[in-house]
Amino acid sequence: MSSLRVRTDLALEVRENMEENARECRGVSVEEDYREESELRITKVVIETMNGSKAMGKPIGTYITLEAPAMVLPDEDYHQEISTELARQLRLIIPGIEKELSVMVVGLGNRDVTADSLGPNVVDNLVITRHMMKEYGKAAFDKKRVHMVSGLVPGVMAKTGMESQEIIKGVVEKTNPDVVVVVDALAARSTRRLNRTIQITNTGIHPGSGVGNHRGAITQEALGVPVIAIGVPTVVDAATIVGDAFEKMMRQAGEEPLDIKDELSSGLGELYNMYVTGKDVDYEIRQISHIICDALNSTFELGEGSLSRMG
Amino acid sequence: MSSLRVRTDLALEVRENMEENARECRGVSVEEDYREESELRITKVVIETMNGSKAMGKPIGTYITLEAPAMVLPDEDYHQEISTELARQLRLIIPGIEKELSVMVVGLGNRDVTADSLGPNVVDNLVITRHMMKEYGKAAFDKKRVHMVSGLVPGVMAKTGMESQEIIKGVVEKTNPDVVVVVDALAARSTRRLNRTIQITNTGIHPGSGVGNHRGAITQEALGVPVIAIGVPTVVDAATIVGDAFEKMMRQAGEEPLDIKDELSSGLGELYNMYVTGKDVDYEIRQISHIICDALNSTFELGEGSLSRMG
Amino acid sequence: MSSLRVRTDLALEVRENMEENARECRGVSVEEDYREESELRITKVVIETMNGSKAMGKPIGTYITLEAPAMVLPDEDYHQEISTELARQLRLIIPGIEKELSVMVVGLGNRDVTADSLGPNVVDNLVITRHMMKEYGKAAFDKKRVHMVSGLVPGVMAKTGMESQEIIKGVVEKTNPDVVVVVDALAARSTRRLNRTIQITNTGIHPGSGVGNHRGAITQEALGVPVIAIGVPTVVDAATIVGDAFEKMMRQAGEEPLDIKDELSSGLGELYNMYVTGKDVDYEIRQISHIICDALNSTFELGEGSLSRMG
Amino acid sequence: MSSLRVRTDLALEVRENMEENARECRGVSVEEDYREESELRITKVVIETMNGSKAMGKPIGTYITLEAPAMVLPDEDYHQEISTELARQLRLIIPGIEKELSVMVVGLGNRDVTADSLGPNVVDNLVITRHMMKEYGKAAFDKKRVHMVSGLVPGVMAKTGMESQEIIKGVVEKTNPDVVVVVDALAARSTRRLNRTIQITNTGIHPGSGVGNHRGAITQEALGVPVIAIGVPTVVDAATIVGDAFEKMMRQAGEEPLDIKDELSSGLGELYNMYVTGKDVDYEIRQISHIICDALNSTFELGEGSLSRMG
Repeated sequence: MSSLRVRTDLALEVRENMEENARECRGVSVEEDYREESELRITKVVIETMNGSKAMGKPIGTYITLEAPAMVLPDEDYHQEISTELARQLRLIIPGIEKELSVMVVGLGNRDVTADSLGPNVVDNLVITRHMMKEYGKAAFDKKRVHMVSGLVPGVMAKTGMESQEIIKGVVEKTNPDVVVVVDALAARSTRRLNRTIQITNTGIHPGSGVGNHRGAITQEALGVPVIAIGVPTVVDAATIVGDAFEKMMRQAGEEPLDIKDELSSGLGELYNMYVTGKDVDYEIRQISHIICDALNSTFELGEGSLSRMG
Repeated sequence: MSSLRVRTDLALEVRENMEENARECRGVSVEEDYREESELRITKVVIETMNGSKAMGKPIGTYITLEAPAMVLPDEDYHQEISTELARQLRLIIPGIEKELSVMVVGLGNRDVTADSLGPNVVDNLVITRHMMKEYGKAAFDKKRVHMVSGLVPGVMAKTGMESQEIIKGVVEKTNPDVVVVVDALAARSTRRLNRTIQITNTGIHPGSGVGNHRGAITQEALGVPVIAIGVPTVVDAATIVGDAFEKMMRQAGEEPLDIKDELSSGLGELYNMYVTGKDVDYEIRQISHIICDALNSTFELGEGSLSRMG
Repeated sequence: MSSLRVRTDLALEVRENMEENARECRGVSVEEDYREESELRITKVVIETMNGSKAMGKPIGTYITLEAPAMVLPDEDYHQEISTELARQLRLIIPGIEKELSVMVVGLGNRDVTADSLGPNVVDNLVITRHMMKEYGKAAFDKKRVHMVSGLVPGVMAKTGMESQEIIKGVVEKTNPDVVVVVDALAARSTRRLNRTIQITNTGIHPGSGVGNHRGAITQEALGVPVIAIGVPTVVDAATIVGDAFEKMMRQAGEEPLDIKDELSSGLGELYNMYVTGKDVDYEIRQISHIICDALNSTFELGEGSLSRMG
Repeated sequence: MSSLRVRTDLALEVRENMEENARECRGVSVEEDYREESELRITKVVIETMNGSKAMGKPIGTYITLEAPAMVLPDEDYHQEISTELARQLRLIIPGIEKELSVMVVGLGNRDVTADSLGPNVVDNLVITRHMMKEYGKAAFDKKRVHMVSGLVPGVMAKTGMESQEIIKGVVEKTNPDVVVVVDALAARSTRRLNRTIQITNTGIHPGSGVGNHRGAITQEALGVPVIAIGVPTVVDAATIVGDAFEKMMRQAGEEPLDIKDELSSGLGELYNMYVTGKDVDYEIRQISHIICDALNSTFELGEGSLSRMG
């Protein structure tokens, strides 16, 4: 990985950007599954040891990536296919899902900035059941097994004056969910991946990640319950894009990028807190929110006529 | 007050609807101030004793109402006048405002239902300072005295699965504000008052009040810190409007409404959870949010060039 | 029909409220189809003559109503069922749909007032193809037959200063669609029908109809091309609800409502421009928009993987 | 100006980026006014001849720029100052403003993409009077002179399938305004200018300009009435930012950028339709919309208590 300022929230990209020989490092296992017909690629990166964690710059844990170039085309059947696969992966990674769980789904990000609105969007459209279970019990539902789902949109620090972590922690302590699922917009390294990739991990959200650059960790360690994070890269950090374009061109020109990396870094200061996003970001975020929302509803076994009454 | 189902969140209307002789009840004091030029009427109802509380059906405390028929006309100077008065009243009722306070402003209600979006609207536009005070201290500001302002939009139970009270309590315990200011859309008895009245009270929010009918109290007793509530009637309960129209007509026809009150009550069941609102509610809510937001910003001494840097 | 002020935009309700004997009037035919399993009721009212039009107070034409009590429950399969039926009805009523059409879908109403936001919501989520057909031709699509779909959200008079009719007419004259489909939120007489009923008609939109009370007709006569209207009752006029509740109670009390109808009417003045709506209107509008959007996309044969590229 | 791909919608930046000696070209005059106290810089570039137009790559006409580094700080008084100056400039450039005008304000852009939502935002908050003048005449207003203001938000091509130009032209022909004022979000070359600059021009909107890259001109030539454009740079084109960073670094390294410009250009293809924007774009757009809206309301002499009734 170049020493120029580079940022990605995708474990997959970290690995891609490692030197060829470094990839085979111990402590990191990678499995890939490509489905030709649907062009859906599922990659599972498991960081198993502290060594692997250090090499990857990411915490120990499992990182699953679903990639599909046609993810945002207006094709309901295809969306269904991706969301079914996503639900399958979620059921494998959410601990205790075979029992009746109390789950809090947290939508991180800023609902007023399109590229950062994924999390709030998903929670806005989720089937919420906790209040009905509390009031009517399982009698309100047709199903044998019902999870208690609650939803929280904490907002961003510039608008709340509080860390997302503080808010979530306070609400977790009052309402005691068994597990927290966090949905967030991420930064990728490559524009090619924007809004075409979904990452699931059991490591939660770490400082500096997400479009909004969360400061406090949202992890099992911080909250006291398992935290599953679902992330979609919707932006590329502006400094990263410039650095990458630069490196690429230098190589094409047969030069060694390192020679002027210091000039480069100093010249990128004005790009701090700037990001690159696409023109159709509103449409694309809406499509992916829909896919994730369907996957979550089906993971928690709702959205299938299971409510006999809606509150 | 008629025994037909009637609902109002305004102390002022409770009193108006009492029988003439009942108004002079002990334990309730009323002061009124009318400013002819601006047509601004300020009424202060203080419920002093348990007796007064019982007679009024409202908790002991102070209820201040600002009424202005032209409140929503597009007149910046007039808005300024109302918001200045509102700020003056807030400074009188917020305990400890003469020191440096940590204040959490909570916007109750549902941002996706126009008539219930007042609270979220106000918090969205508030100047938030807590995170900057935490990071830079007072050095970030030009002023000598700076309050730490945070903002929270908990969302409604149908979308979170949680009581607003649970969420607020959790966040209060984590972030320890000195005082909580709650902004909410209310139900009035008369359409004439909609979006032309602002009520301030130091009694907080009680079960059954607000457009969304909160179940858990948001009061000093529940949260452990003083709670000031700012409310604006934006809807009339549908059953109330039918009941009132009915009573009025019966009286005009010289009949006694009580005779058929049971039939009436049973006939109103289908109006449960329905409310009456005006066609221009979007415009009107925007205007009043603006007035309240300006008043809060000025109460906390910001919005006047006092930030040397904005985070 | 009572002579009290009553308003409904549903042909179905007009007929229900006619006296028993008046229903069999000549010039109006009614067909009903009830599907027990899905509880879906389809009623087709055809006003065939001027006599029928006069009796019904609605223009000559076809009015199809889909009613389903569970329309807004979170059940994707059921939504699919309703939307498939809606698409079938649309294909029967849109003239020329068997050829390749240029269709403009117009979303009437105010996107900032939840109960009036149905039209804008539907158009926001529609698959739009006109610009791609203009640029790439049919090569951009996998399908043999592709309709050219454009979308317009004209906004309401209070925000544009213009009649919706003026705006639509101007755009129709510039872009020459073969047919216009108008989507609008309507007023019903009964709260029971709110957000559970979809009306399709080939008579367009007439003055005084819709939540926003359009003044200029949006009809074939006005625009020069056929106009199909899709409407969903989302509100009840406040004066209507009071009048109806009053009549019902008078009858229950064995009295004759007509005796005091004048007092009633005069007492309802303050309810002008007020309407009644439910607490969950945001959720319900979102569900129905989704159903209508799916039906339109499928009517125009898109949303099924038919785009090889999205612009 | 470098031959690398560069894009700016600001005449000011075009000039800055010209070679020192080229700036003194004939046919272009520049006046600058800097107000030390408010840090407000007003620059007037007038392109007077075809030669000047060719040199600048912009049409003949007047381009006024207001720049203020503190434009988006939460300071009402300062906003007032900028908006007063903006109104003064608008009164100088809008032809016929001394008479009673019929003005259509058009908000270009996509309301669902934050950086492109400036135009819709401004129109949403404008005081609209045309419908009231049509219905009540000047009697509805306190003022002697009242302009008829209408507002239009045409939407973007991806959502309408139509060019903004087609829509505006159709509506202009139906409603016959004397002048059209277009508000749009622009692309700048430098991140430093984002959301701190307002450009006014009497040349309208040209193909390829704006965040959404309009294809059809929105000019007096196209619409038949004078078109004043108000633009704010809210994004930088991603390819431009990479090209610029690259050039800067090459120069710092003492190399000649032109040597590899072809590699650069080919490497930037993936940045097509991508743009760079800041993290606080929602807050900043809201502040600037507010300033422009106030300026327009005051230009058309409203927002000062002049409505005796609001429709």
